Amino acid sequence: MNSFFQRVRFAGERNSSVLCVGLDPDPAKIPDSVKNSETPLFDFLAPLIDATHDLVCAYKPNAAFFEAFGSAGVAQLEMVIEHIRGIDRDIPILLDAKRGDIGNTAKAYARAIFENMRADAVTVNPYMGGDTLQPFLDYEDRGVFVLCLTSNPGYFDFEALESGEEPLFVHVARKAVELNVLYNIGLVVGATHPEEAARVREAAPGLPFLMPGIGAQGGDAAQIMRIGFTGDGFPPIVNSSRGILYAGSDANYAAKSRDAALRVREELNSKIDL
Amino acid sequence: MNSFFQRVRFAGERNSSVLCVGLDPDPAKIPDSVKNSETPLFDFLAPLIDATHDLVCAYKPNAAFFEAFGSAGVAQLEMVIEHIRGIDRDIPILLDAKRGDIGNTAKAYARAIFENMRADAVTVNPYMGGDTLQPFLDYEDRGVFVLCLTSNPGYFDFEALESGEEPLFVHVARKAVELNVLYNIGLVVGATHPEEAARVREAAPGLPFLMPGIGAQGGDAAQIMRIGFTGDGFPPIVNSSRGILYAGSDANYAAKSRDAALRVREELNSKIDL
Repeated sequence: MNSFFQRVRFAGERNSSVLCVGLDPDPAKIPDSVKNSETPLFDFLAPLIDATHDLVCAYKPNAAFFEAFGSAGVAQLEMVIEHIRGIDRDIPILLDAKRGDIGNTAKAYARAIFENMRADAVTVNPYMGGDTLQPFLDYEDRGVFVLCLTSNPGYFDFEALESGEEPLFVHVARKAVELNVLYNIGLVVGATHPEEAARVREAAPGLPFLMPGIGAQGGDAAQIMRIGFTGDGFPPIVNSSRGILYAGSDANYAAKSRDAALRVREELNSKIDL
Repeated sequence: MNSFFQRVRFAGERNSSVLCVGLDPDPAKIPDSVKNSETPLFDFLAPLIDATHDLVCAYKPNAAFFEAFGSAGVAQLEMVIEHIRGIDRDIPILLDAKRGDIGNTAKAYARAIFENMRADAVTVNPYMGGDTLQPFLDYEDRGVFVLCLTSNPGYFDFEALESGEEPLFVHVARKAVELNVLYNIGLVVGATHPEEAARVREAAPGLPFLMPGIGAQGGDAAQIMRIGFTGDGFPPIVNSSRGILYAGSDANYAAKSRDAALRVREELNSKIDL
């Protein structure tokens, strides 16, 4: 296990949590109390981070919601990362960016995310093949989560296509195992397709899973906890975004988000070892 | 043909060109004369745009090379787009970003690229399926180039996997045809695999091709021009980045880039109707 996954484990044990809170600041849902500030994305998220950092194993900011505001939004993403570091250095930061491109360009994306943003981990898209993932994998102390089986209906279009009697997502899982020479790869495995997720677990028994889809998307906690652990007991990193961020909509929203995070954490913990 | 592709055709006819110059400002290759400015990416690219805008059918800024410098880099991407608009409103701008994510997040990426950056077109990654492309396709006056057959060696890992006797890239091409109800889809088809590119052309006779890989990556102009045209004569958009950007390395680099662009344009034009 590399230092990124050790940090996830340490934070998770400290906080008794497999919950990762996804930071997707949607302007349509941000409470009125912060909507009109100069830096609404940051001002919305900072109190929420203050209220939940003792309940999570990681935070997952979603690049899209910051990029929607151009360079001013990206500057707020930088502020959010700094804020998490400042309030609790134990909590790893996984930037959800789903990047993927050829050599030189992939190197630039890896520099952007690992050196400029100083994120601890990233999500990447495998479509273009193993060589496009390598520039991320070369950072041996970071985590690289490869999209594998996703939780949206369209997973059926390509991810589920059978080739040689195995769906594409199983081929992706096997390739990830092969590329995992520095022990820094995880897989993104949606919580909404439990049978398919079990096939990924079979193909990649040792790779940590980042599992989105609990809550708003309908993923089931018991199924997540059944499939999510690696063969040697590394827990799934279970992401919830909207269900926690938008639990409240008034000035008191951060306390409501804390209550929601507590509930999801307990629900997940209650399914361990069942 | 939607208004984006009409603009490409208009610019291409005005400039007698199928050449798209890729704007990938690599700090390791930027001439010393601009390297130490406050905004080196912009200061490198602006003279180069001034020197080539009468020779191209489009520009393709590559988001990665700007993001590598964080919000300050993204601000320079915004400046580059403004600069192109200011000097020549006829030239369409295709942002190479290769985004792809589920509904809400894809919507945020589409807002980022089409509303905040006001790019005319974007590249997207199809791995997660048709529903993840839809938020981009909903912008009927913009162009959406779906990654299909790429020019890197790793295309073999997944893109070339056979399912039902057709490789994944052909499935992607067929899905793109199906999704093309607003006539705003193109395909990214690498110039380095001519036989495979011909299969994409067969599966999607009407979709415009964005063809990277000429020059540094070894793509052949004659093959590009043979496969690149749609059934009703829309020309390929042929991208060259490094071969043009880094043709020179001294203070006179913009003139060298102009010479290189002239050569590639002529080489491509000489293969039309052969």
